[in-house]
Amino acid sequence: MKNRAVFMQGTDNMVTKDVPMPKIKEKDVLIKVDIVGICGSDVHYYKHGKIGDFVVEGEFILGHEAAGEVVEVGEQVKGLTVGDRVTMEPGKTCGKCEFCKGGKYNLCPDVEFFATPPYHGVLTNYVSHPEDMCFKLPKNVSNVEGALVEPLAVGLHASDQGGVKLGDTVVIFGTGCIGLMTIISCKAKGAAKIIVVDILENRLEVAKKVGATDTINAKEVNVLKKIQELTDGKGAEVVIDAAGAAITVKQTVDAVKPGGTIVLVGMTPKDEVEFNFMKLMGKEAEVKTVFRYRNLYPIAINAIASGAINIKDIVSHEFDFEQTKEAFDFVAEHASDVVKAVIKIK
Amino acid sequence: MKNRAVFMQGTDNMVTKDVPMPKIKEKDVLIKVDIVGICGSDVHYYKHGKIGDFVVEGEFILGHEAAGEVVEVGEQVKGLTVGDRVTMEPGKTCGKCEFCKGGKYNLCPDVEFFATPPYHGVLTNYVSHPEDMCFKLPKNVSNVEGALVEPLAVGLHASDQGGVKLGDTVVIFGTGCIGLMTIISCKAKGAAKIIVVDILENRLEVAKKVGATDTINAKEVNVLKKIQELTDGKGAEVVIDAAGAAITVKQTVDAVKPGGTIVLVGMTPKDEVEFNFMKLMGKEAEVKTVFRYRNLYPIAINAIASGAINIKDIVSHEFDFEQTKEAFDFVAEHASDVVKAVIKIK
Amino acid sequence: MKNRAVFMQGTDNMVTKDVPMPKIKEKDVLIKVDIVGICGSDVHYYKHGKIGDFVVEGEFILGHEAAGEVVEVGEQVKGLTVGDRVTMEPGKTCGKCEFCKGGKYNLCPDVEFFATPPYHGVLTNYVSHPEDMCFKLPKNVSNVEGALVEPLAVGLHASDQGGVKLGDTVVIFGTGCIGLMTIISCKAKGAAKIIVVDILENRLEVAKKVGATDTINAKEVNVLKKIQELTDGKGAEVVIDAAGAAITVKQTVDAVKPGGTIVLVGMTPKDEVEFNFMKLMGKEAEVKTVFRYRNLYPIAINAIASGAINIKDIVSHEFDFEQTKEAFDFVAEHASDVVKAVIKIK
Amino acid sequence: MKNRAVFMQGTDNMVTKDVPMPKIKEKDVLIKVDIVGICGSDVHYYKHGKIGDFVVEGEFILGHEAAGEVVEVGEQVKGLTVGDRVTMEPGKTCGKCEFCKGGKYNLCPDVEFFATPPYHGVLTNYVSHPEDMCFKLPKNVSNVEGALVEPLAVGLHASDQGGVKLGDTVVIFGTGCIGLMTIISCKAKGAAKIIVVDILENRLEVAKKVGATDTINAKEVNVLKKIQELTDGKGAEVVIDAAGAAITVKQTVDAVKPGGTIVLVGMTPKDEVEFNFMKLMGKEAEVKTVFRYRNLYPIAINAIASGAINIKDIVSHEFDFEQTKEAFDFVAEHASDVVKAVIKIK
Repeated sequence: MKNRAVFMQGTDNMVTKDVPMPKIKEKDVLIKVDIVGICGSDVHYYKHGKIGDFVVEGEFILGHEAAGEVVEVGEQVKGLTVGDRVTMEPGKTCGKCEFCKGGKYNLCPDVEFFATPPYHGVLTNYVSHPEDMCFKLPKNVSNVEGALVEPLAVGLHASDQGGVKLGDTVVIFGTGCIGLMTIISCKAKGAAKIIVVDILENRLEVAKKVGATDTINAKEVNVLKKIQELTDGKGAEVVIDAAGAAITVKQTVDAVKPGGTIVLVGMTPKDEVEFNFMKLMGKEAEVKTVFRYRNLYPIAINAIASGAINIKDIVSHEFDFEQTKEAFDFVAEHASDVVKAVIKIK
Repeated sequence: MKNRAVFMQGTDNMVTKDVPMPKIKEKDVLIKVDIVGICGSDVHYYKHGKIGDFVVEGEFILGHEAAGEVVEVGEQVKGLTVGDRVTMEPGKTCGKCEFCKGGKYNLCPDVEFFATPPYHGVLTNYVSHPEDMCFKLPKNVSNVEGALVEPLAVGLHASDQGGVKLGDTVVIFGTGCIGLMTIISCKAKGAAKIIVVDILENRLEVAKKVGATDTINAKEVNVLKKIQELTDGKGAEVVIDAAGAAITVKQTVDAVKPGGTIVLVGMTPKDEVEFNFMKLMGKEAEVKTVFRYRNLYPIAINAIASGAINIKDIVSHEFDFEQTKEAFDFVAEHASDVVKAVIKIK
Repeated sequence: MKNRAVFMQGTDNMVTKDVPMPKIKEKDVLIKVDIVGICGSDVHYYKHGKIGDFVVEGEFILGHEAAGEVVEVGEQVKGLTVGDRVTMEPGKTCGKCEFCKGGKYNLCPDVEFFATPPYHGVLTNYVSHPEDMCFKLPKNVSNVEGALVEPLAVGLHASDQGGVKLGDTVVIFGTGCIGLMTIISCKAKGAAKIIVVDILENRLEVAKKVGATDTINAKEVNVLKKIQELTDGKGAEVVIDAAGAAITVKQTVDAVKPGGTIVLVGMTPKDEVEFNFMKLMGKEAEVKTVFRYRNLYPIAINAIASGAINIKDIVSHEFDFEQTKEAFDFVAEHASDVVKAVIKIK
Repeated sequence: MKNRAVFMQGTDNMVTKDVPMPKIKEKDVLIKVDIVGICGSDVHYYKHGKIGDFVVEGEFILGHEAAGEVVEVGEQVKGLTVGDRVTMEPGKTCGKCEFCKGGKYNLCPDVEFFATPPYHGVLTNYVSHPEDMCFKLPKNVSNVEGALVEPLAVGLHASDQGGVKLGDTVVIFGTGCIGLMTIISCKAKGAAKIIVVDILENRLEVAKKVGATDTINAKEVNVLKKIQELTDGKGAEVVIDAAGAAITVKQTVDAVKPGGTIVLVGMTPKDEVEFNFMKLMGKEAEVKTVFRYRNLYPIAINAIASGAINIKDIVSHEFDFEQTKEAFDFVAEHASDVVKAVIKIK
């Protein structure tokens, strides 16, 4: 067994190097990585070297959406065995702070998250990970689907935060990977009307394929007027912004129904956004937010295995491990065409 | 326009008689009834003359699952017009008590509920009903489906009380109409594993058709052992009793997972049931109950119209208005074969 | 029995006139009004003739915080009798719309609310009101306390929306009547630390008297730094803005803890407010809002009667019915000194 | 530093022996125990050698309600220093299972709980405990109060499970230590009416002192009739059984209001209890249960420190470490007189 990893070296540059085999602790398993999805944040680090306060220093391994096979287990590992295929939840949390103990471990201040500096990611052959963060994939769930559980979990969490339920009308701004995963999540929970807004026609087509019941091209029609029309003038129970633009954040308050919920999942602009809180109050609506996810890997896997969720159509491009740099360059240059690219490690 | 109604006269007896056309008040609509479903409670009144403290006195019109067409509207009716097809929510509530104002109008002590003595039901040509309790059916939802919204609402409420959510494992005892509607509701919310228990093989077959992933014939296998096997020894997040037998109520506590929820929706035996509360406490599980439903007609209609829910396969028998007595006799005698019988009024 | 009412005639002008005795319907009671509190919104109409889209046309009776005595009951009134002292919840709702039926009747689009144009208020000797919106006061709750249930209900709803619970740390911006009622509500629910921010020292003194554990004068210290210091750098579980200024709305996101809740109860500026949603997302915090209240009158009365809440100290000024104009002028001119003024009708 | 511990040796027997000083791991602190409360479960082990499936084998140290002083800290301890006074939450949980990660760590199947076989308790001079399970006591909270946080947490959890809120009417069966702690918890959350039922007049007196507004001696009056009378025939929003008798469990369903919540916190009888589920369904009421507690130590400490909760009056008897056996014998013999006994270790 020989281990190699792809490192970014400064921006727009990557090298593949031999690295030592990871040593596993007693509650860890060693995973032979098979599939790694490329996330927008990976590309952002590759192109800009940082996201907000998280700055890449020196060489850095990207990748946090991953699935593979267990090849070794620690002494105290009870639930996994060699040969199991698993998907890895990327954040190792402390288990001790008030957030961890309270069930909101995504807010743990000491989390070590794959590919968030200074913690390396998984674009490598072998990685060690705690057993409790590795989730076994059933026979009818592929490694590609396993890798996609990560962005799906974000979409599921967005729909959870919104309280999306059977029969609801939902408006979703944005058709990036997270927007699409949010559509899929809302549909799986039985939302009856899923209105999706974007400015790219080809992405709106994908949105329709994965569950949008109505699409609005914001370049062509008056978005708010169209939403009122599609909701009989009532607005939507839940409005989810997965676009992260100042304009869409602002529009959420007009799209939401009295008593409804706005969810922000797309990274909003760094600067302040002008927002009409008086309208929000007049509707007694609320704004909820999403920071990663929690306790959703088992649910996602169950939902995929049972057929309640289908994410197979999300992968649009696949690259070999050797092509990692090409993959990142391609995704960066063709953002609007790439729904989701994955890298096949071996 | 001439109005006729079918009255039960004592038990096991029915007559059809001319009745006056109902007069509508300013917020009422007049409905020409098209479809009425026969519910277990209707049959129970027909055979026994009472359910618990509700005793039929004199002649009585049964039927509370109904859809039809609006033929006249009161002066203050704003949302419905002549020609609209609607389903009727059977309970008129006071709108003033703490339960109504608190959103739990199903607990209103002054409710007037179709076919619950002393309030007549809808086995009649024309009925007056408040606009706000009549829900318009979209083009792609038939009157038969509209009539079935009533039992569906019970199933939806049972799954709501259980907090059934995407990816859950649910155990459902009983495959009567409510059991089946509960299966359908759980499936529509994305439950991944729906384990259904009964003693009738033909009903378990229906259960499978509408969404059960696993069925257990309690006559053939050890129910609790099988449930543990199917849930990897963990039990189910939600266990719903729609059988209403002392034995099934007792078994719920063994089938439920620690922290899980038991829901009682089937009419439990009149007498007390021996229950192991110590086991319930050891799991910190909870027992929730269902009394009719609330605020679910719009959700049910949205879910049917969007395809999230399919209840077409539920109707197994259809009778003409003239055959009402035959219909009741047939249902009473063939309870295990009849999934749902409906009466076509005109 | 003779009835008189005080009308505003244009801004800054009031006249007292004879008016007919109200006629009660079968579910109404006739109230001889005893105490009416003056709310900031009353004063705003008096000075400006409108609030947002609500414009006073012609003569208009103000006042919506009121208590008095039942002097006549409608035929179908069951729960109240002549001689009962009651407080009146000012909003008559339809009881039929989805918001009413769902338990959020404060969002009813057809509400008729005292002193919100075009519906007259209660600065009059006699008023008719539906029984279900009149709440009997126990012996140990005075009419003055009864009248104050209205603003208290706003404070209670704000703390409910925030999910304030035993042991919590809460930051409250603003010490107007609603701010103080919010402090009182949080204290009654067991909040352990109640940090109150304002720029008026005399109001901060009142805040302390009613339950603030720490006060911050925003003119003298760095508010955000001080909040961090008082919360060990963690922020508060709940941050409630009852000031309604752009600056305080903006500060909420810095004062709140990860996973915490911001509540907006003070009327925010009409224009948009620049808000840092990225910070909100980084904390996965949420923004909730308050529009009036629902189902809180009985709770408020119970809490006052039991001693859990004490609002006696809130009234700072009392005026006679004849002095109504003087009262409004005084309150308008001495806003920072008047904690709460009430008018004694007879 | 020398360490001694009191061991039970078979039932009704105790010996004090020298034991090695505990070794602390890097995230542990060493506590010099000061106060240990005697819980009913400790006495039950002492008298019967087992509780349910938990059987004492060989020598065993009892005690799980404890406070003391930090005398040494592990290398990775960040939040505590030598000299801090702390109360210890007795259960060490895995932090890895779905219950721990989901915020319900009290359901962790691998918990190691003080004085629950095979894990020794804290009737010893020195004990090692993980930092995150030790909670610093502020200056105005004594070690005795610190030790009582444990049973208080049970009472708080019972009131949480019941959703007890401001203005509620609560019925509590049983005035043992947990019953009293439940009364205190309900009062701190603003419950307006707290009706307490027992058969011991002296305990009902204590109940009144700590917050009961009404007491019912079940030997003297018809309990259910009296509850109806005290609740205007409505029943209570929350009914909590802290008595654990078949009769009280059965009575809960008659005492609860439609839509209300029953909470079982007292250990119910081992055998099955006959329960009227039909009544429960007719009210759409629910039964919730309590298994220990979770995330409540910080809340309890905040509430005590702020004065929202006063548990000083709970301690009725204090014994020296040398008198431990006498203490247990006394408590066993005078159960109805002892509200709470504590042992002063040094």
